[in-house]
Amino acid sequence: MIAKTPKPPYYAVIFTSILGDFKEGYSEMADLMVSLAEKQKRFLGIESARDGLGITVSYWKDLESIKMWKENIDHRVAQEKGRKDWYKAYMTRISKVERDYCFDR
Amino acid sequence: MIAKTPKPPYYAVIFTSILGDFKEGYSEMADLMVSLAEKQKRFLGIESARDGLGITVSYWKDLESIKMWKENIDHRVAQEKGRKDWYKAYMTRISKVERDYCFDR
Repeated sequence: MIAKTPKPPYYAVIFTSILGDFKEGYSEMADLMVSLAEKQKRFLGIESARDGLGITVSYWKDLESIKMWKENIDHRVAQEKGRKDWYKAYMTRISKVERDYCFDR
Repeated sequence: MIAKTPKPPYYAVIFTSILGDFKEGYSEMADLMVSLAEKQKRFLGIESARDGLGITVSYWKDLESIKMWKENIDHRVAQEKGRKDWYKAYMTRISKVERDYCFDR
């Protein structure tokens, strides 16, 4: 689903990742993290796709809400497990959305 | 592949899309647009994934290079065809990357 975000400005966390061969438990944890993120204050939406490369973009009202999510204790456990077991490589980019354009048939 | 972008700040164009039922010619056009984008001035990289929802993030040095790519004549033809034939809906978000963190095993 395309996230229904408010009028800019707001923030996007672009998380791009490549999984290693061991994937046990990964998709359950990913689903759990999405449902947990959705409960955070000032969370605006999330979009995710994977076909080899995984891209998850989460949207937030401000930098403080991103920081709080990064430091959330359950999320920290997931991040640690991700680095130890699942991810071959990842990149997190924090960006400020300045403009958007939509098309809907 | 995770794009090898320079130290921030730089810009990210987050393009999220849902295709309709008619997909003929879409993947060829998408590949063509990637190879054309890579030839543009101040293009920094691109990441793409689709599993139902499609997410393509292209990275650029500045807003001017994004504007030039948006107005590129071959790209305009592809955009028009996308709206007419392929996309059910899409959202384009222009954002400024302020920070990044990477992990590589």
